[in-house]
Amino acid sequence: MDDLVNALLNGSRRAVARLLTWVSDESPQASPILTALFPHTGKAWVIGITGAPGTGKSSLVNCLAKAYRAQNLLVGIIAVDPTSPFTGGAILGDRIRMRDLSGDSGVFIRSMATRGSLGGLARTTRDAIRVLDAAGFDIILVETVGAGQSEVDIVRTAHTTLVIEAPGLGDEVQAIKAGILEIADVLVVNKADRPGAHKTVSALRMMLDIGHPASRTQMTAHHGQLLEVKTPETPHSDEPIWIPPVLETIATDEKGVAELVSAIQKHREFIQSQGLSAPLERQRIEIELHERLREALIQQLLESTSPEYVMDVINQVQNRQLDPQSAVTKILANHKQMVS
Amino acid sequence: MDDLVNALLNGSRRAVARLLTWVSDESPQASPILTALFPHTGKAWVIGITGAPGTGKSSLVNCLAKAYRAQNLLVGIIAVDPTSPFTGGAILGDRIRMRDLSGDSGVFIRSMATRGSLGGLARTTRDAIRVLDAAGFDIILVETVGAGQSEVDIVRTAHTTLVIEAPGLGDEVQAIKAGILEIADVLVVNKADRPGAHKTVSALRMMLDIGHPASRTQMTAHHGQLLEVKTPETPHSDEPIWIPPVLETIATDEKGVAELVSAIQKHREFIQSQGLSAPLERQRIEIELHERLREALIQQLLESTSPEYVMDVINQVQNRQLDPQSAVTKILANHKQMVS
Repeated sequence: MDDLVNALLNGSRRAVARLLTWVSDESPQASPILTALFPHTGKAWVIGITGAPGTGKSSLVNCLAKAYRAQNLLVGIIAVDPTSPFTGGAILGDRIRMRDLSGDSGVFIRSMATRGSLGGLARTTRDAIRVLDAAGFDIILVETVGAGQSEVDIVRTAHTTLVIEAPGLGDEVQAIKAGILEIADVLVVNKADRPGAHKTVSALRMMLDIGHPASRTQMTAHHGQLLEVKTPETPHSDEPIWIPPVLETIATDEKGVAELVSAIQKHREFIQSQGLSAPLERQRIEIELHERLREALIQQLLESTSPEYVMDVINQVQNRQLDPQSAVTKILANHKQMVS
Repeated sequence: MDDLVNALLNGSRRAVARLLTWVSDESPQASPILTALFPHTGKAWVIGITGAPGTGKSSLVNCLAKAYRAQNLLVGIIAVDPTSPFTGGAILGDRIRMRDLSGDSGVFIRSMATRGSLGGLARTTRDAIRVLDAAGFDIILVETVGAGQSEVDIVRTAHTTLVIEAPGLGDEVQAIKAGILEIADVLVVNKADRPGAHKTVSALRMMLDIGHPASRTQMTAHHGQLLEVKTPETPHSDEPIWIPPVLETIATDEKGVAELVSAIQKHREFIQSQGLSAPLERQRIEIELHERLREALIQQLLESTSPEYVMDVINQVQNRQLDPQSAVTKILANHKQMVS
């Protein structure tokens, strides 16, 4: 184990690959190693990239990776794929992305998929980020396809969140924007050579004006669940707030990428200069502990409750003798009796 | 309370509206009423409709509602909107849909959004379905936008799941199909007058041949978490399996809707004739209890653990003195001590 930890801390690609596989398989072998690596984490900047399907996220991720490589930074890419909860296999294979970046030992790419358990994807993504972080990757790009929970998971993990849009994806996509706008630190209209790009940019800027997503501190504060932070502090009027810029890119032609890298850098400097790094990290930790506790608690219950007991309760619900909420109360009472 | 229950069982729209608001607000007032209504549920057929943004799901839902209304069935529509976890507001308002269906008292439409809590959306959606079911709605259409957890939630709730596709949404959407194919009972290629529709249909049929999603029994069995049903039974070779049909529709012209209604009816008859209704319902109950237990357990923990204690643990994690998994073990040990 010590060998693997040392190899990983020295940036061994083989060690990274092996440990990422353990993490993604949720193998118990990963656990002591993650504990050993933890003190060596916290150096990487994590960039979340999300947006609706068809916006060209993967191309943009490739462009960003190349740009950071040109700055001589080590780049880790985690492609999170929440779309196949049943097979548990990553659909967008590593191979598609490898074309441009293959042969560069300064880039490490891994696709990850959920194993179907709620919260499992968020946990394995966080652990994968830590593995790359401890191995010395400076920039970690976490990409997800989605229009729901997956974005939230990214916000909860990333230091800078990019929301990618594309022109002309229809009204429904426009509507979705209102939702994902709120999680964006930087908005990108990709495929900016398509008709309607400028209209999309204006629409986004308008929505930003209406929505005032303001700083990330405010937003993430909503999620302070363990400490029940319910009302985020209103920033003082003289306190600078981060207004997400709206950028245009054409990833296939590598246009606008330098501006995007610069916007990400500005966001990073904003977080750091405003003293927001520590409070934002606290919130991320709080959210992670909350999610892990949920998982652990249900495991404990499953271990203390016999399948026969559960089956009997399910029968009563199916026969409409017991409603689901009362069934839960019953199972919890039984659990309490079993553990005491 | 009895008055509201009776009014609802008699199909009062006002009672339905009030109770749906309570359900969607997660108001404690809803709880005893849901218990009282529960014996009166289980009659409606619940149809889940999902697919990537831009496929025209809402138009198709409107078409289906009109078709069922023509059969003199009462139709409830729940538009689940998981895209705005931060504001908690439903983005796609009821108003957009109301245009065609307004003035018809046989249709009830409600948009719902998550309040940000994991599992909250699934719970409120299930409760909303029960309210409509108890109020006598025959068909309940549950629509969601998404490419992730939200589809899974729909599968876990619906009796028949439609996955909507559209031609020409790009390669990434093609890739997603592989994931959501597995949850489809019926596949619909909407906007079938667009270029590439036949190609999309062929591609889907080919993927179905490869993937063998087979019957719903097999798939949902993966989720039997409380009883830890891990290996689904392989159906006997002489047992009929449900092969999801791939249909073409043009919702804006109401084309292909009759065929879609007929395919849904065939799926319903398949489930019923094969004796699958009861085992599938058991699985749905099991999944629901599992989700509710998770929520209840974390609530108990939050009530027993002082914010100061949590803050101290978070500090240790932030200082890299304690890794997240060890932090969880510590909080659980403290919780156990507090409740015993």
